[in-house]
Amino acid sequence: MVSIAIMGHGVVGSGVAEIFTTHKQKLYASIGEEVYVKKILDLREFPDSPLADRFTKNFEDIINDLEIRVVVEVMGGLNPAYDFVKRCLKAGKSVVTSNKELVAAHGAELLEIAKETNTNFLFEASVGGGIPIIRPMSQCLVANNVDEIAGILNGTTNFILTKMIEDGMQFDDALKLAQELGFAERNPAADIEGHDACRKICILASLAYGKHVYPDSVHTEGITKITLEDVRYAEAFHCVIKLIGSVKRLADGKIDIIVAPMLVPNKSQLANIDYEFNGIMVRGDCTGDVVFYGKGAGKLPTASAVVADVIDCCKHLKTRKFLYWADGNGKNILPWEESSRAMYVRANGSNVAEKAEKIFGEVTVINKTDAPADEKAFVVKAMPYSEFAEKIAQLEADGVSVLSSIRVADL
Amino acid sequence: MVSIAIMGHGVVGSGVAEIFTTHKQKLYASIGEEVYVKKILDLREFPDSPLADRFTKNFEDIINDLEIRVVVEVMGGLNPAYDFVKRCLKAGKSVVTSNKELVAAHGAELLEIAKETNTNFLFEASVGGGIPIIRPMSQCLVANNVDEIAGILNGTTNFILTKMIEDGMQFDDALKLAQELGFAERNPAADIEGHDACRKICILASLAYGKHVYPDSVHTEGITKITLEDVRYAEAFHCVIKLIGSVKRLADGKIDIIVAPMLVPNKSQLANIDYEFNGIMVRGDCTGDVVFYGKGAGKLPTASAVVADVIDCCKHLKTRKFLYWADGNGKNILPWEESSRAMYVRANGSNVAEKAEKIFGEVTVINKTDAPADEKAFVVKAMPYSEFAEKIAQLEADGVSVLSSIRVADL
Repeated sequence: MVSIAIMGHGVVGSGVAEIFTTHKQKLYASIGEEVYVKKILDLREFPDSPLADRFTKNFEDIINDLEIRVVVEVMGGLNPAYDFVKRCLKAGKSVVTSNKELVAAHGAELLEIAKETNTNFLFEASVGGGIPIIRPMSQCLVANNVDEIAGILNGTTNFILTKMIEDGMQFDDALKLAQELGFAERNPAADIEGHDACRKICILASLAYGKHVYPDSVHTEGITKITLEDVRYAEAFHCVIKLIGSVKRLADGKIDIIVAPMLVPNKSQLANIDYEFNGIMVRGDCTGDVVFYGKGAGKLPTASAVVADVIDCCKHLKTRKFLYWADGNGKNILPWEESSRAMYVRANGSNVAEKAEKIFGEVTVINKTDAPADEKAFVVKAMPYSEFAEKIAQLEADGVSVLSSIRVADL
Repeated sequence: MVSIAIMGHGVVGSGVAEIFTTHKQKLYASIGEEVYVKKILDLREFPDSPLADRFTKNFEDIINDLEIRVVVEVMGGLNPAYDFVKRCLKAGKSVVTSNKELVAAHGAELLEIAKETNTNFLFEASVGGGIPIIRPMSQCLVANNVDEIAGILNGTTNFILTKMIEDGMQFDDALKLAQELGFAERNPAADIEGHDACRKICILASLAYGKHVYPDSVHTEGITKITLEDVRYAEAFHCVIKLIGSVKRLADGKIDIIVAPMLVPNKSQLANIDYEFNGIMVRGDCTGDVVFYGKGAGKLPTASAVVADVIDCCKHLKTRKFLYWADGNGKNILPWEESSRAMYVRANGSNVAEKAEKIFGEVTVINKTDAPADEKAFVVKAMPYSEFAEKIAQLEADGVSVLSSIRVADL
């Protein structure tokens, strides 16, 4: 029997406790011994829980219990999760977390402590919820150099964008609907501003390239400026607009990492990932493109990923999983202004196409039947963002009013 | 340093040797020691290979070498692979294989020997080539009861069907093109008759449900009877025709397993998997649908999956991975005639729709603008196949000539 503790009894935490009860037999069969949930940490009371006798409000009850070998952290947020996790690892307990904020902010440090104390620090559920991605990347794709990762990593924004694309809903209405359906929080900033997706691409980039990438070193744009007009022009250009977290390996060893809405060609596998679903494309130098798809959030999908990590910890109480990356100083990250992508531009004025061609060289004008007479949308070829911004300034100086510009994904 | 041997220096085998050379540093970083390819077994001569000094034509050189801890079997076919693998496992060497024929025919026995000798028998590359699927299923989805698996498991047939759908090519022409491009073998029977897909769904079903499913207990239909007419009617019904390997868990504990071409709704994730690509949907009771997509074959994709297994073996020389299923007697398999699915029917005669309605009850007629006057295609609701066959006989007795019938996937 292996004793574990669960810190946090919210949506994911209660799901974890539930799976250990409902799937007891299957889990037993997989490791050959019982996993016993000995303690659950939460400040609230749960008198009606079948595990009511295991609750504690005191972290010391967990850290001082030598029988507890694996601790699940599903409290969320940085404090006190960071402190608790650190103390658990230092005390020789393995830790499993679904907390992407924690892993994105302190992953390298916590992995280093786990290495020193010969424990495991696993976080499959922190990216993609129930979609297997961390373990496939660290184990199945280990014989690949990862050339690129591009993902739809946030279900809330993908739901909103899908509603805009499929039903012609305005952003605000789609957001309200997402909130009503429980896909968006009352304060949706972390999702719609791209911060949640940023944490996840940071975790994947750290894993793929071996050096911690901190969220504040990644240029991040959300979807709040996306309009139905842009959605329609994208459609006419055989694309859909998706919030993409992307990281690429460059020839000089640097990485090009960004979170931004992008026009994704319909033929791309990521274009068909709709509503609250997530999808992650990993381009390996041996495998080519591999795509993982599924529910990126939700009680049981996320909890089942946490439980799988717990099982892995229980199988590796004496050995370590080789999940590790070193700390990073951001010097391996290309400044985002130097990153090159084709750009979509929507603008207003007289002779927009001619003026754009004079400044950008060749442009591809997007024809949309019901476009206003003085509006034009076009796509310019890939160039560093700084050069693009300069040319846009020239265009505006030439009397054109630029209404929006969005990156075009080369997927 | 861990010494390994590779049995077979064909497409995959030479890829494995290549990756151990080209990705040496990355692999070293992942396990902290060198993997040394000590012997390569092949009856042919490879004087120009950089590893020319490692070749042997004698299996005894491998089995008797106590330093060799992991053996890669990429010879293909059952003989002598089966005998060699068995002897390696019995001698305490872990084995990694990409040989789906071997795993589908003898998986249970080989896993049992591995258990007895405390070795590992891994076969990630046997299904889906470079797509991670065996490890995600056995580890990441361990906290799920698998309700269903449905996959496009054979790239050759998917290439042919895609060419029929997208370019209106006839089956024979598409097959010829696939052969020219190297996606189909000169003798394409194993692919186009569905046997290759059958082996793969057998492996996935054995893994998901814990009992070996042998290929000869699975009803298997290929794609040789699919016509362009059916492809067009499917299109009018918002579907594409795909060769699907499917297994479902039934309420009574039995499994419903089949390989057959099916009409797949356009909105399904599997509908967008085209050309030589593979895609596998796993429906877990906690995760919901998870889909894995990528190249299901090819030198480096397959070889990189083999190498990942080798690395895993090297990390687990003393412990065992909990990959296991017991032998099966086929009693847990629903007789295929009792399996229920909606059916697409194309038929010829007078008043086809009226006659079909009289026999089948409600039918959905598919309207296609350029259909011959006396031809009708329709879809009937799900019923056991035996009942469907009986009703089709009645329809034919009523003067209708049935041209084709294809299952409709409930994906």
